[in-house]
Amino acid sequence: MPDPSVRLSGSVRGVDSSAIRDLLTLTARPEVISLAGGLPAAEMLPTARMADAAWRVLRSPEAAQYTETTGIGALRELLARRQSAELGREVDARDVVVTSGSQQALDLIARALVDPGDAVVLEEPAYPGARQVFQSVGARIESVPLDADGMCTGRLGEMLAAGLRPVLVHTVATFHNPRGVTLAAARRVRLAALADRYGFLVVEDDPYGQLYFHTPPPAPVAAASDLVVRLGSASKTLAPALRTGWLTGPRELCRAVERLKQAADLCGSALSQSIAVELLSDEEWLAAHLASLRAVYGERATALAAAMRTVFGERITCTDPDGGMFCWVQFRDGTDTDRLLAAAVTRGVAFVPGGAFSPWLTTALRLSYATAAPEVLRDGVARLASAHASI
Amino acid sequence: MPDPSVRLSGSVRGVDSSAIRDLLTLTARPEVISLAGGLPAAEMLPTARMADAAWRVLRSPEAAQYTETTGIGALRELLARRQSAELGREVDARDVVVTSGSQQALDLIARALVDPGDAVVLEEPAYPGARQVFQSVGARIESVPLDADGMCTGRLGEMLAAGLRPVLVHTVATFHNPRGVTLAAARRVRLAALADRYGFLVVEDDPYGQLYFHTPPPAPVAAASDLVVRLGSASKTLAPALRTGWLTGPRELCRAVERLKQAADLCGSALSQSIAVELLSDEEWLAAHLASLRAVYGERATALAAAMRTVFGERITCTDPDGGMFCWVQFRDGTDTDRLLAAAVTRGVAFVPGGAFSPWLTTALRLSYATAAPEVLRDGVARLASAHASI
Repeated sequence: MPDPSVRLSGSVRGVDSSAIRDLLTLTARPEVISLAGGLPAAEMLPTARMADAAWRVLRSPEAAQYTETTGIGALRELLARRQSAELGREVDARDVVVTSGSQQALDLIARALVDPGDAVVLEEPAYPGARQVFQSVGARIESVPLDADGMCTGRLGEMLAAGLRPVLVHTVATFHNPRGVTLAAARRVRLAALADRYGFLVVEDDPYGQLYFHTPPPAPVAAASDLVVRLGSASKTLAPALRTGWLTGPRELCRAVERLKQAADLCGSALSQSIAVELLSDEEWLAAHLASLRAVYGERATALAAAMRTVFGERITCTDPDGGMFCWVQFRDGTDTDRLLAAAVTRGVAFVPGGAFSPWLTTALRLSYATAAPEVLRDGVARLASAHASI
Repeated sequence: MPDPSVRLSGSVRGVDSSAIRDLLTLTARPEVISLAGGLPAAEMLPTARMADAAWRVLRSPEAAQYTETTGIGALRELLARRQSAELGREVDARDVVVTSGSQQALDLIARALVDPGDAVVLEEPAYPGARQVFQSVGARIESVPLDADGMCTGRLGEMLAAGLRPVLVHTVATFHNPRGVTLAAARRVRLAALADRYGFLVVEDDPYGQLYFHTPPPAPVAAASDLVVRLGSASKTLAPALRTGWLTGPRELCRAVERLKQAADLCGSALSQSIAVELLSDEEWLAAHLASLRAVYGERATALAAAMRTVFGERITCTDPDGGMFCWVQFRDGTDTDRLLAAAVTRGVAFVPGGAFSPWLTTALRLSYATAAPEVLRDGVARLASAHASI
C-alpha cells in the first residue's frame, strides 16, 4: 500500500532539518575522524558513577514515578543554591525549572515570549539550535556580530538607539559555540544595563561555563540584572543522556514555562534528575570529575590549535580555546569550507563549515576537539591538510 | 528588588494550567486517600529490575551519550516488531519515533498537523492533556460523544456528512480516560473507513491497552487503515520516569515530528530508552510483570466498583472497568461533584470532578483505583459517602 499523503502545518513546513545533524549522520562511519560533533568525550562520561547512583535512587519508587513539571525538589534546591553563589544574590528554588536538556528550555522560552513578527537578537554566528527555535515561532531575527571579546555590545547599543525593540537577546556568553570566544566582563555589565534600559530579556545560554581550562569565566550577565534568564545543562559536565537542563529567571516566565512544559511532556524524568542530584551533590567526586574534564579538554584544545598552526601557518587564523569544546578557524586564502568538507570527508575527517552557522562565513569552520586524543587530532589535521591541498 | 514584569506571548496566555494537576497539588497531603491521580501503583514499579538494567546498559558509554532524535535503534526495532504483530502488517522501524512520554507525541503531532482554525475532533469527555495541546495550536475543537461502546462513530459520520473536515480525530479507544469504556470492534472498523473516505488522520492514543483484566481489547484502529498514528507509552506498564512514549504512523508525519523534536529537545534519553529495551525484550519477565499488574488492578477495580454500588446504590451509575485505571461514576440524584469535592477533601478523600473533563459533566466524577489496596479503596468510598451526606 502506498504511504498515505499527510498535509503538514505551516509551522513545520518552516522548520529546516539541522544541517549539522544531517552531516553527523553522513560522517558517523567509524573510519572518519569527526571534529564535527558537539558531543562530550565518551571515555569521560561517568557511567560507573551513574550506575551506582541509579541503584541508590531506585531504592525509592519515587525515582520511577511521575514528578513535578518543574523538576524534583532536591534538584531545584541544589541548583538554586549554586546559582545564588554564582550570582551573589538569593535565587529561590521556585525560580528554577528543570528541562529536557537546555534545548527544551530554549524552545519553551521562545514559545512563552515570542509572537510572530517579534524581534529577537542572536549572535552572528549563532548556535543553530537557537536559530531553529526562534525561527519556528516566527521571530524576526536580528544579528549582532562577535569579536574576540564576544558579542559586540556597542553595536547592539547602536541598534537599540536606532529603534530596535527586541523581546530578547540570546547569547552564549562563555566559550561560545561556534566561535569559542567569551564575553568580556565589561560587556556583560553593558549588556545587562541595555536590558534594564530597553526592557528586553537576556537569554544567557551557558552549557560550557564549567569547562574552563585555566581561570573561571567572568561573573554571569545575570549577576548584573534581573532581566536575565540563565540556562544551564548537565549534558557537557555529566552526561547528555540525563537530558537534564535548567533555567533560572523571572518568576512570571518560570510559571509560563511550567504551563507550556505540562502540555509539552507533563514532566521530566525523576530517575535522571535523581541521578543528577546524586552526582552534583557529591562535591568531592564532582570536583575531581570536573578537574579531569578540564585537563583532558585543555590538552586536546592545545594539541589541535598547535597542529592547525603548524600545518596551515599563515593561511589561517585560529582561536586558542580557554574553555568549552570548540576551535574556530578562519581561512585567509579564500578557501571555500563547503568544498573543503566534501574533500575532507573522502579523506576521513569531518568538521562543520561556517556556512552552517551563517551564510556569510563561507571561509570559516568549526572544529571540536572534545572527542579525540591529541594523536588522533594531529592525524585529523593532516587529513584536513591533504584535503586542502587537493582543492 | 521587585520581580521584573515579563511580556508573555499570545500562545502562552491561551494555555490554562491543568485543573487536575492543580488539584493533585492540593491533595498531596499523606492523610488524603487520593482517587484523583493517573499514576501507576508505586509498589508495582519494577525498580529493582530497572536498577539492574541501568547497571547493565551503562557498561557502554553509548547509554550516557546523545542519541538519534527518533530514538535508539534497538527500541525502534523492538517496537516495530511488536506493532507489526498487533496490526497484522509490516511496520518499518523508520516509521517509529520515540518521544518523551506519549504527551510529547501529542504535542509534536499537533504542531506538525494543525494550523490555527483547523478543525480537530476530540471525544467528549476528553483526556485534558489532549485538549490542552490542541487548544495551544489554535485548533477549532469539535466534540463527539461517547457511550458504553466508546466514541459514537455514527454521530461522527453525520458530522462529516454535514461538511465537517477535521485534520485529525483523537481517540483513547481502549480503557478510555476518563470514561473507562472501550471502542467496540465494529466501530473501530467504521472509524478507519471514515478516515479513508474523508482523508483525516486518526490519533489512536493507547497508554492502557496492555492493562486488560480478562481478555485483550479488539484489534487497533490502525489495523484497519494507514491513516492512523498510534501512540504508545511505557509509563503505565513499566515506569513513568522512563519518559518513554512512541508513535507509529505515516512516514511523512514521522519525519515532520522528527524535525520538530530536534528543535524541541534534540533527542530523548539513551539511558531511559536502553533500560526500556532491556525490560521489554525480557519476555518472560515482562509477561509475569504484566500479569501481576493486571491481577492487582483488576482486583482493585472490582473492589472499588462494588464499594461504590454498596454505599451509593441507586443514586449512581458506575462503570465496571475491564482494564485501565479509571472508574466513571454518574450521580442520578443531581449531586454537583465540584461541591462534593470540596466536602470530600475535608474528609480526606479526593477524586476528579467531571467538570475537569467537560463543562457539561457536573454530576459525574472519575475515580482511579490503581494506587490503593482494596481496604483503602473501601475506606475512601466511606469518606466519600460521608461527604455526600454532608452536602
